Amino acid sequence: MEEINFDKYKNIKRTFGRDIINLNPIQRGGELPLQSKQAIYEYWDGYSVCDYCGGRLDKVETPPIHEYLIDISKFLGMDVTRPTHGARESKFIVMNALCNKGDYVVLDGNAHYTSFVAIERAKLNSAVVPHNGYPTYEVNAEKYSEIIDNLEDEKKPIGLILLTHVEGNYGNLQNAEKVGKIAKKKGYPFLLNCAYTVGRMPVNGKKLNADFLAISGHKSMAAASPCGLLSINNEYGDKILRTSKTHVVKEIEMLGCTSRGVPIVSLMASFPYIAERVKKWNEELKKTQFVVNELESIGFKQLGVKPKQHDLTKFESPILDEIAQKNKRKGYFFYEELKKRGIGGIKRGTTKEVKLSVYGLSWEQVNYVVNSIKEIVKECIGR
Amino acid sequence: MEEINFDKYKNIKRTFGRDIINLNPIQRGGELPLQSKQAIYEYWDGYSVCDYCGGRLDKVETPPIHEYLIDISKFLGMDVTRPTHGARESKFIVMNALCNKGDYVVLDGNAHYTSFVAIERAKLNSAVVPHNGYPTYEVNAEKYSEIIDNLEDEKKPIGLILLTHVEGNYGNLQNAEKVGKIAKKKGYPFLLNCAYTVGRMPVNGKKLNADFLAISGHKSMAAASPCGLLSINNEYGDKILRTSKTHVVKEIEMLGCTSRGVPIVSLMASFPYIAERVKKWNEELKKTQFVVNELESIGFKQLGVKPKQHDLTKFESPILDEIAQKNKRKGYFFYEELKKRGIGGIKRGTTKEVKLSVYGLSWEQVNYVVNSIKEIVKECIGR
Repeated sequence: MEEINFDKYKNIKRTFGRDIINLNPIQRGGELPLQSKQAIYEYWDGYSVCDYCGGRLDKVETPPIHEYLIDISKFLGMDVTRPTHGARESKFIVMNALCNKGDYVVLDGNAHYTSFVAIERAKLNSAVVPHNGYPTYEVNAEKYSEIIDNLEDEKKPIGLILLTHVEGNYGNLQNAEKVGKIAKKKGYPFLLNCAYTVGRMPVNGKKLNADFLAISGHKSMAAASPCGLLSINNEYGDKILRTSKTHVVKEIEMLGCTSRGVPIVSLMASFPYIAERVKKWNEELKKTQFVVNELESIGFKQLGVKPKQHDLTKFESPILDEIAQKNKRKGYFFYEELKKRGIGGIKRGTTKEVKLSVYGLSWEQVNYVVNSIKEIVKECIGR
Repeated sequence: MEEINFDKYKNIKRTFGRDIINLNPIQRGGELPLQSKQAIYEYWDGYSVCDYCGGRLDKVETPPIHEYLIDISKFLGMDVTRPTHGARESKFIVMNALCNKGDYVVLDGNAHYTSFVAIERAKLNSAVVPHNGYPTYEVNAEKYSEIIDNLEDEKKPIGLILLTHVEGNYGNLQNAEKVGKIAKKKGYPFLLNCAYTVGRMPVNGKKLNADFLAISGHKSMAAASPCGLLSINNEYGDKILRTSKTHVVKEIEMLGCTSRGVPIVSLMASFPYIAERVKKWNEELKKTQFVVNELESIGFKQLGVKPKQHDLTKFESPILDEIAQKNKRKGYFFYEELKKRGIGGIKRGTTKEVKLSVYGLSWEQVNYVVNSIKEIVKECIGR
């Protein structure tokens, strides 16, 4: 063991400061409230959630996992819910349980990479419903019908319809209700990937005609990573939650138990906080729309559908690119100038496009971010 | 939302006290050292390990995940390692990547239930190498040859040979080297389930002829749950770590990234501690063997192979059962009497058999446990 230098593991620190305003959209919904941190302190030892386990994680009463799964199902307008390691794992569970090898999954062109990778892992095929390209990148729900019809005409088996409720590229909110209606009419199960929605904004699965919600705890439910949920309609409960032939209480797709530790505890502890914050979604949209207006006034251009219906926002930023051409720090000037002002989470070195979110920041912070960007542009232009 | 009572999520406490001596074998190897708790404090916000991610968890440099995976491979005598959500998830990854539908997995009769459930989830068949039954429950390595020959004679395809290094029923240490040699000779990949060994005792995968090690962070590596590792020999690297056709940097079986949060951070922070503690394995065995001798002197009978080569120990305890017949608390007296003395982790209500571990306890604590059990028997017998 002489060859291993253990020093680097002895004092692991997060170098991204606690005091920095973080604009990274994948992190804005994952900051823990105090009560969630306190719960982690209780349950960080390995397998401590199993203190009083009778054989299955979802039935554990202390901590209240069993009750949580009932309550969160109500909260989501769904019938039954299981913890998972995250939205990607939720999607794979559904694909592996429902589909036969070679089946087609019909999904939107904006789908997260993990939807495609889950399809490959489950040995399935994908049929993509294209978006309409620059600048709105919208997916027309009607196109789902077209793609489904084509596959049926070609006698290709369809296993699942998947839609990304809000996708991570442009933050477009899709018309889930309509896609769900199409899926129902055609008789296919419908999975809605809510990684960017559940926990940020109100979502009712039944109203959106969803058979499954794939949910991310760390992305949007103020939980420690990795964890998520899979929420299911009763119609598909038997298939997804089928139990082992040899170990009859164990659910096969969960490999017995999934999120057996700290992340599920933080997810539960954050639930009251989440239930409150989704009520303030309109205020969050106002913040986002304010940022769009302000930054467009200095030459940014918001991509995706307008007006914004989600906090994840992507801009074209030709003005930054123009500065980068002449600045001796090239494309890094923007990142560095933001950092000086205590703002982070913007991709380092890129200036053609900027992706950000101000979700959960106070109006004071939102103003500070906007004014800082304006100031940077003003100071650096022409220099 | 009126129908949900959020109070129960507002102050989640672990009721199993911090001051209790915990004899539960699945928890003894999962208690965190201080430095690991400190690291969790740094990284509990969702997706915070992704601050400086270039697209893949295993390549992240801050925190030092990339270096850790290189170092832990050295530590384990293996070529390449990936984080997973736990040993069960590691096993499923190997099965799903290597085997074809309907293939047989040859595995020991003492295998953990998750091995069987992973086989079902991957749509495979199992062929069990039986143990020799009461009282040692030993699996003879030679029997693997027999089962493999039978399957080959019947033209049944074999996808994987799996052995549970130490199993969770009797704590028998299996002859991995020999089973690995048989697998190699026959030309099949060999997976060793090290959930109860790596992190407690020294393990060198190459020396044990293993192609894969399935490892549990929360069970035996002093890490927060859920997390684990999959350690791989180069020969199988390409198959297990193949990347997506559409998203070329993403590893399919990892769904891109696996343990993207708090658990992997605690696993890394506990590494120096783990590397030290496995050196003291002989002392741990002495403690276990001492407990066996002492409890056998009052009428317990150790099941499994003798002398003990692992801390997980199962006893027949007819003396406790005898007491339970007459005690007004029935089988609960033992649990309650232990609890009074600040000892926990023994299954409540059962007295025919007792499973326990004193791994990592001080000699003072070990003596206290033994003396407490002796005292309980002495006090309760004949009452």
